[in-house]
Amino acid sequence: MSSPRIGVGTDVHKLVPGRTLWLAGLEWPDEDQGLEGHSDGDCVAHAIVDAVLGAAGLGDIGSHFGSAEPEWADAAGTDFLRETARRVRAAGWSIGNVSVQAIGNRPKISTKREQAERVLSDAIGAPVSLSATTTDGLGLTGRGEGIAAIATAILFQA
Amino acid sequence: MSSPRIGVGTDVHKLVPGRTLWLAGLEWPDEDQGLEGHSDGDCVAHAIVDAVLGAAGLGDIGSHFGSAEPEWADAAGTDFLRETARRVRAAGWSIGNVSVQAIGNRPKISTKREQAERVLSDAIGAPVSLSATTTDGLGLTGRGEGIAAIATAILFQA
Amino acid sequence: MSSPRIGVGTDVHKLVPGRTLWLAGLEWPDEDQGLEGHSDGDCVAHAIVDAVLGAAGLGDIGSHFGSAEPEWADAAGTDFLRETARRVRAAGWSIGNVSVQAIGNRPKISTKREQAERVLSDAIGAPVSLSATTTDGLGLTGRGEGIAAIATAILFQA
Repeated sequence: MSSPRIGVGTDVHKLVPGRTLWLAGLEWPDEDQGLEGHSDGDCVAHAIVDAVLGAAGLGDIGSHFGSAEPEWADAAGTDFLRETARRVRAAGWSIGNVSVQAIGNRPKISTKREQAERVLSDAIGAPVSLSATTTDGLGLTGRGEGIAAIATAILFQA
Repeated sequence: MSSPRIGVGTDVHKLVPGRTLWLAGLEWPDEDQGLEGHSDGDCVAHAIVDAVLGAAGLGDIGSHFGSAEPEWADAAGTDFLRETARRVRAAGWSIGNVSVQAIGNRPKISTKREQAERVLSDAIGAPVSLSATTTDGLGLTGRGEGIAAIATAILFQA
Repeated sequence: MSSPRIGVGTDVHKLVPGRTLWLAGLEWPDEDQGLEGHSDGDCVAHAIVDAVLGAAGLGDIGSHFGSAEPEWADAAGTDFLRETARRVRAAGWSIGNVSVQAIGNRPKISTKREQAERVLSDAIGAPVSLSATTTDGLGLTGRGEGIAAIATAILFQA
């Protein structure tokens, strides 16, 4: 095994009424607010992208899928994950695993954790584990203004 | 050595008057506010639990010690750590190390860092390092509304 | 390769008018607000210091460069990085890589990412990757009150 490299990424998106919630690669049809964003606003997927790119030393989500690449403007979180994994592997890395946490009052991640982990793992081609927590009613996530996510990833030189 | 896996976890609990502060596995008897929660509210210990479970791909603190396991409702942070380490090892993992940071105005972690690191390391059976920082008077921790913690862990297939 | 150890660190500093912005080892002369602090307030550098010290189990930025070592009170972020790397290596560790994310509305990190990565990597003597994100207008960074940073590091016993 070659020397591992690690990365970290976070993301926050605003919750707004009248928008479908996409989070952790899944649609949450019972939620009455969704995450704002050019793309689907899936901050869990976006945090993973930054963690993986950071470990590979390949920039961040903005440098890969930003205004210079307009074809990605409306992409789903899982599309970002698939393309990130492809670019990172093309640069000679293999992905060991990813751990990501969703931080917010809702949705109840635990009701669909296994499904979300499967979808995220399939997209990135490596094990992704998903946890969820709250901020005890405090701060931007505690007030329900948005959802945050934090991810870490370990990569190996293939 | 087998391929390592990494995990991340965060937690925030509210500070309330008239409650003993438990943080990083220690009692802080000189503090006049404590952390709210069914358990002792020790967000440092809880963040470690999520980081370790995330690295092992074994769910999170809610899926292990939530309403389905009511006997854990009032457990101390160190009890969660001990049981988490037991479950993760039973699933075939060894814990490499854990790094955790407490984020808040108080208590002065530095006055008892070595003691806290010893207690946390004993509970998890692996080296735990503890740092402390503030948010410069900003946000929920800067306003003294609560204490946050962030942890990362590395595990190996035993 | 010996067993790796990982660490995490975060930092937040307040933005104030009439102060030069130093962030990620660089001066940002076009910004009209800078980060408050005894030192240059470079929260990206400070988060890296805590991540590296946490991985090594050697305390935190306060225990190394706090009031007990007044000669460091006004040091630049890169000075902290250089001295942290020296102390960690003297204790028998080599630094694998560091991943750090700046969280805030400004500056536009992408305009100088490569330069910042070079300066940070030179200071620590290991690859540092830098990403940037926002909190979508929410919370302390979204309101422009400050800039946050989060870092993770992997070390090996030399």
